Amino acid sequence: MKIENPNPIQWQFSERAQQLQSSAIREILKITQRPEIISFAGGLPSPATFPVERMKEAFDKVLTDNGKVALQYGPTDGYAPLREWIANYLSTNGSKIVPEQILMVSGSQQALDLLGKVLIDEGSRVLVETPSYLGALQAFSVYRPEFQSVATDEHGLVPSSIPALAQGARLLYALPNFQNPTGRTLPVERRIELVETCARLGLPLIEDDPYGALSYKGEPMPKLVAMNPDGVIYMGSFSKVLTPGIRLGYVCAPLPLVRRLELAKQAADLHTAQLTQMVVHEVVKDGFLERHIPTIRTLYSNQCQVMLDAMAEHFPAGTSWTRPEGGMFIWVTLPKHINAMQLLDQALAARVAFVPGAPFYANEPETNTLRLSFVTVPPERIREGIAILGKLIKDAL
Amino acid sequence: MKIENPNPIQWQFSERAQQLQSSAIREILKITQRPEIISFAGGLPSPATFPVERMKEAFDKVLTDNGKVALQYGPTDGYAPLREWIANYLSTNGSKIVPEQILMVSGSQQALDLLGKVLIDEGSRVLVETPSYLGALQAFSVYRPEFQSVATDEHGLVPSSIPALAQGARLLYALPNFQNPTGRTLPVERRIELVETCARLGLPLIEDDPYGALSYKGEPMPKLVAMNPDGVIYMGSFSKVLTPGIRLGYVCAPLPLVRRLELAKQAADLHTAQLTQMVVHEVVKDGFLERHIPTIRTLYSNQCQVMLDAMAEHFPAGTSWTRPEGGMFIWVTLPKHINAMQLLDQALAARVAFVPGAPFYANEPETNTLRLSFVTVPPERIREGIAILGKLIKDAL
Repeated sequence: MKIENPNPIQWQFSERAQQLQSSAIREILKITQRPEIISFAGGLPSPATFPVERMKEAFDKVLTDNGKVALQYGPTDGYAPLREWIANYLSTNGSKIVPEQILMVSGSQQALDLLGKVLIDEGSRVLVETPSYLGALQAFSVYRPEFQSVATDEHGLVPSSIPALAQGARLLYALPNFQNPTGRTLPVERRIELVETCARLGLPLIEDDPYGALSYKGEPMPKLVAMNPDGVIYMGSFSKVLTPGIRLGYVCAPLPLVRRLELAKQAADLHTAQLTQMVVHEVVKDGFLERHIPTIRTLYSNQCQVMLDAMAEHFPAGTSWTRPEGGMFIWVTLPKHINAMQLLDQALAARVAFVPGAPFYANEPETNTLRLSFVTVPPERIREGIAILGKLIKDAL
Repeated sequence: MKIENPNPIQWQFSERAQQLQSSAIREILKITQRPEIISFAGGLPSPATFPVERMKEAFDKVLTDNGKVALQYGPTDGYAPLREWIANYLSTNGSKIVPEQILMVSGSQQALDLLGKVLIDEGSRVLVETPSYLGALQAFSVYRPEFQSVATDEHGLVPSSIPALAQGARLLYALPNFQNPTGRTLPVERRIELVETCARLGLPLIEDDPYGALSYKGEPMPKLVAMNPDGVIYMGSFSKVLTPGIRLGYVCAPLPLVRRLELAKQAADLHTAQLTQMVVHEVVKDGFLERHIPTIRTLYSNQCQVMLDAMAEHFPAGTSWTRPEGGMFIWVTLPKHINAMQLLDQALAARVAFVPGAPFYANEPETNTLRLSFVTVPPERIREGIAILGKLIKDAL
């Protein structure tokens, strides 16, 4: 039955497929998963925070009470009670979000892909922070935009730099809370200025907010979407507050856009697993997250402080870093002449890993930057790893 | 905190987003979900076949034994033991499929989207059957190909018609087993001719096989991929043999292509839920499907026979239909002058639903065709609905 194959296929990939590159982080992670390595490279939440028992109960309850529905095909826009819960959760500061604005997605990476698919033509101008989330650059790149890097300083994005870049732009992508990779948080005055600037320009503003709930102190910052629901597209996720392995996120967008995203999702994968959505609704509907999230905040905040203290002790003058008020990452700026990619080679030889900063830049990279995550490493290993890194930086000076 | 919105966004969608249309079927399904309607319109498997208890046990076991891993981020290519199981399952007729060829996806609709993304440029020629699976036309359309309809007859696709259409074509998409929408099965001689023709032309051949295991009698037909693993891309799914609501499928492709698909998947949604893959592996690893699938075959085969018998009794001369040897669908060809879309209006008024055939054609539709599904309707309702349809067709003559 085997057929002769005289003419092996000369694979001709689409032009967009030629843009595809594996995430630098995913490649580094492959090296750094050996247990002897102290890895600050991961972007993974700590499995210690996963509410396994609560999830198990919820799977059991949904399958017992409603198994045939949970296991059948479902609507593209998502499970209605969960969309209602999310709309209610997002209706803060006097703003009113309706369930029709919510589209459930298979993790918020999918929202990035759908937004790119629906908003970006080849050569479209797309504004991103400097640096920006690597997964967003990757998702948008498939659609071959022309990236424009919006200036940032120690408080994050600088709104006054937007108008000069906005001519013909299709969107601005921002991550205002405990940004990945820098850990920075946009102050309230800048939020107002950012939303006002985009509203004035008629420029769609994407607010990516996976870490917003993981604030270490005080009240969370106001959401951009609450300031202007007609101009802001909000992306949320259950990955950092519940568990990432179930792949569940959502996008909240003005109605003309969300209907288009829904059509794109229908063609892309019909819908996100109904069972998963019913289980997450079962878990969150009675206020579980309000009890659970503080335990994540405490863990991450403590480990962040351990890392900051160790850096103050071991890192030499001329090296600076961010002091996150939430989230999972610290961003380090080395003296100008030190290349973080080269430092990584030495660090791996000394069994410490991190992610160099260069891949997070859409245009010219600052090669003396790097990202550290503190969430999956226990305190004594954080101290040990930072001491090793500090010594390597001193040696490089 | 609410911002003035002086310049409402003038949404500018990408050119590809302007192609997006809701599936005609999904629109019809919205009308036909009322319980008083006898609906032959669905493409859903029967929930009576869902092994709810077995799934519940497996979720419980995976979360108990391995919860932290199941709920964490996972690899883009998928859960290794399940990929091995699939590679082994596909290694039939002396062919050898390796796990590296398998990419897990969130339902095989996602495989269609990724294949389109990686293989189709604007204007690329794409060959499809006449008629073809609507979801594939929808997924590929996003990438703006030029569809070429390959001729079919009562045995399915006619391989000799391919060479004249193949110049510069990027792929041929076929559904050889119990095709959606026609229910036709490609005979062995045609399979050989099809695979030989594509191999000679160096034309990538996609074999979409969601229903292959649902054969009513005898051994399943040989898979195209087993005849030429270097030239055939195989798409499989757990939706019709286990449950669709978990969204789990897979694609098996030659290595240069599968690596490119993996990169596209990483950008699109990182990976498919690890928990789901571990649960499905737990369910299938000990031969559960070999015991379970025969119960689905029996149910569908019986209901198919009921529908065929009722059609023989009630449909007038001049109306013809397929006699499926497996799967979920019967395809009806009405006398030429009857328009199935108009017949649907009358049928809905009489509380019977079906899907008109026109949306399944990439190019010129045959408007006197329609698709009937028999899998979710009990026998007495099948007889009742077919009698009503038969009367309406007679009235239209």
